[in-house]
Amino acid sequence: DKIAVLPGDGIGPEVMDEALKVLHKTEEKFSFKLEIEKGLIGGAAIDATGHPLPEETQKLALGSDAVLLGSIGGPKWDNLAPELTPELGGLLALRKLLSLYINLRPAVVYEELKESSPLSPKVLSGKVDLLTVRELAHGIYFGQPKKLTDEEAFDTMIYTREQVEQIAHVAFRQAKMRRGKVTSVDKANVLSSSKLWRKVVIEVAKDYPEVTLEHMYVDNAAMQLMLNPLQFDVILTSNLFGDILSDESAAICGSLGMLPSASLGAEISLYEPAGGSAPDIAGQGKANPIAQILSLAMMLETSFEKVEAATAIRKAVDKVIADGHRTGDIAKAGDEIISTSSMGDLI
Amino acid sequence: DKIAVLPGDGIGPEVMDEALKVLHKTEEKFSFKLEIEKGLIGGAAIDATGHPLPEETQKLALGSDAVLLGSIGGPKWDNLAPELTPELGGLLALRKLLSLYINLRPAVVYEELKESSPLSPKVLSGKVDLLTVRELAHGIYFGQPKKLTDEEAFDTMIYTREQVEQIAHVAFRQAKMRRGKVTSVDKANVLSSSKLWRKVVIEVAKDYPEVTLEHMYVDNAAMQLMLNPLQFDVILTSNLFGDILSDESAAICGSLGMLPSASLGAEISLYEPAGGSAPDIAGQGKANPIAQILSLAMMLETSFEKVEAATAIRKAVDKVIADGHRTGDIAKAGDEIISTSSMGDLI
Ligand SMILES: CC(C)[C@H](C(=O)O)[C@@H](O)C(=O)O
Ligand SMILES: CC(C)[C@H](C(=O)O)[C@@H](O)C(=O)O
Repeated sequence: DKIAVLPGDGIGPEVMDEALKVLHKTEEKFSFKLEIEKGLIGGAAIDATGHPLPEETQKLALGSDAVLLGSIGGPKWDNLAPELTPELGGLLALRKLLSLYINLRPAVVYEELKESSPLSPKVLSGKVDLLTVRELAHGIYFGQPKKLTDEEAFDTMIYTREQVEQIAHVAFRQAKMRRGKVTSVDKANVLSSSKLWRKVVIEVAKDYPEVTLEHMYVDNAAMQLMLNPLQFDVILTSNLFGDILSDESAAICGSLGMLPSASLGAEISLYEPAGGSAPDIAGQGKANPIAQILSLAMMLETSFEKVEAATAIRKAVDKVIADGHRTGDIAKAGDEIISTSSMGDLI
Repeated sequence: DKIAVLPGDGIGPEVMDEALKVLHKTEEKFSFKLEIEKGLIGGAAIDATGHPLPEETQKLALGSDAVLLGSIGGPKWDNLAPELTPELGGLLALRKLLSLYINLRPAVVYEELKESSPLSPKVLSGKVDLLTVRELAHGIYFGQPKKLTDEEAFDTMIYTREQVEQIAHVAFRQAKMRRGKVTSVDKANVLSSSKLWRKVVIEVAKDYPEVTLEHMYVDNAAMQLMLNPLQFDVILTSNLFGDILSDESAAICGSLGMLPSASLGAEISLYEPAGGSAPDIAGQGKANPIAQILSLAMMLETSFEKVEAATAIRKAVDKVIADGHRTGDIAKAGDEIISTSSMGDLI
């Protein structure tokens, strides 16, 4: 089994180092070995080759069983033509290349880190543990036609029955393994694409009688995430709404430094932290490597069925958190702050 | 001067009664008189006439200088054909009829009500006082073509230069009267319509050198509203993003019962509470009439230039809040809860 490792920009390389440290330790302990090949993506690739997703990286990704990504982008590359930015030319192009239509974004508030959350203790009376299942390959991101002139511009938010069915099944299967509830988010009171979305989700739900289905308008969902995030288990939604709501969900956790994500397609999957490249703290040993390490755990479990190894990694993370070890992003006043690599060592 | 009063459904009629009580008192005190004519809208109109925006109401609205709306909708009318629902056939149709392209949604957290906010005291270290300026007449809500079949559905998110210019000017003018900052929210890294949006906003900004302009992606804005709402003064955004972000902003305030809104067009404007019809508490004297009363104040100020009268109403609201009077939605444990009409009387 082979993985492509793409550290990318900003804090990407340093948190990736820690994830690989953890991978090697885990390989030792559970006696398996993944072949690792590193590649360039994003700004790092632009600087070296002129393109955010060089042909070589494309080949590498397509020839691997899974891709572990760090993070991409930074002010240095913000003013390039859109197709050449790390975000569009790198990340979005890679998603497209691998036909990744499923995006799983868990948001979990650790008991010990409740104080990092912007929400008040009253709202956090239980454990926030929700999963956004976002459709990642269609909708308004890629829908045609698009047009841009100086006088007028438009985008097309489009879904087919099949596209909605595919992602809906993913959400219901996830809910079965979790607390058995799917909240499908749309704007069916206004949008045609949402009306089809809702209709198809209701049909798919019939295959999962043990899962409760609830519908919520996106404006209300944005409100409910703040007022009562505990009501959510699995949030199923479209590409654009998922972009917005998963970021809002991540905010509940206070730091993005703890949140992994997975993007799955038919074959090759991509795993990356939910947060960005944080250029302001890059290279200073301040970054929290946990999101990258938990992305590794998701990869081991989902792409390689190494459930035990993934569980061991998650337990190690739980333990360092319970033991009070903190990088700057999750520290509160008076806490001792440790470095990226110390956090990696401890885990 | 004439106003159309449309109480609508749920708590609409009872909070409207209180607003009219306050209006009459204000008329006495400031010696002016508005002609009031009541009309039907939403579910109440469906029950009486079969249509959520009967011809008579359309005529009434078009013949008035301003419309004061209560709230619309409820489970009873949820399963009608979309064009006949209170929301689409009533509210959206009325917005269209009056060509209301500006939606102003203030979100203010009162010092005394900080505990009603879902955000922690740490985040609320200052006063949240932001205004969403939402484009209300175009974008994906009304963009053509739209299509809905059983196999495929789409919507068109479209903006013209002129439409963006119009709403951008409104936002900058508002910012000049406030703290001088506009945060324009888009998804210009992905959407063509957002690219034009950003371009035009940058151009319009040149007319307002005293206002600071900042751009933010909608996913990040959803996150920042939770992590640090104090950074915002005026949020300028499109119809769909404004729908989502203004609801999230409203959530910061804990209760929707305090938030008014105004929808302005070339001539006749519409004023309504930010919250919904709350059918669960309707008719029980539990609703908070303040959002309706502050909507009245916005109307007096904006449509009739009765600035003093509006200020007097706002001061009266501030005072009852400072004096500790609470309806259920803004009460904390131990507070004495007063009724809708007592709150109206006090104000
Ligand atoms: C970088 C950007 C194109 C991307 C998206 O909108 O999908 C990001 O916000 C994300 O959510 O992964
Ligand atoms: C009722 C609905 C059509 C409406 C909208 O989406 O504009 C509402 O959510 C609002 O924000 O006023």
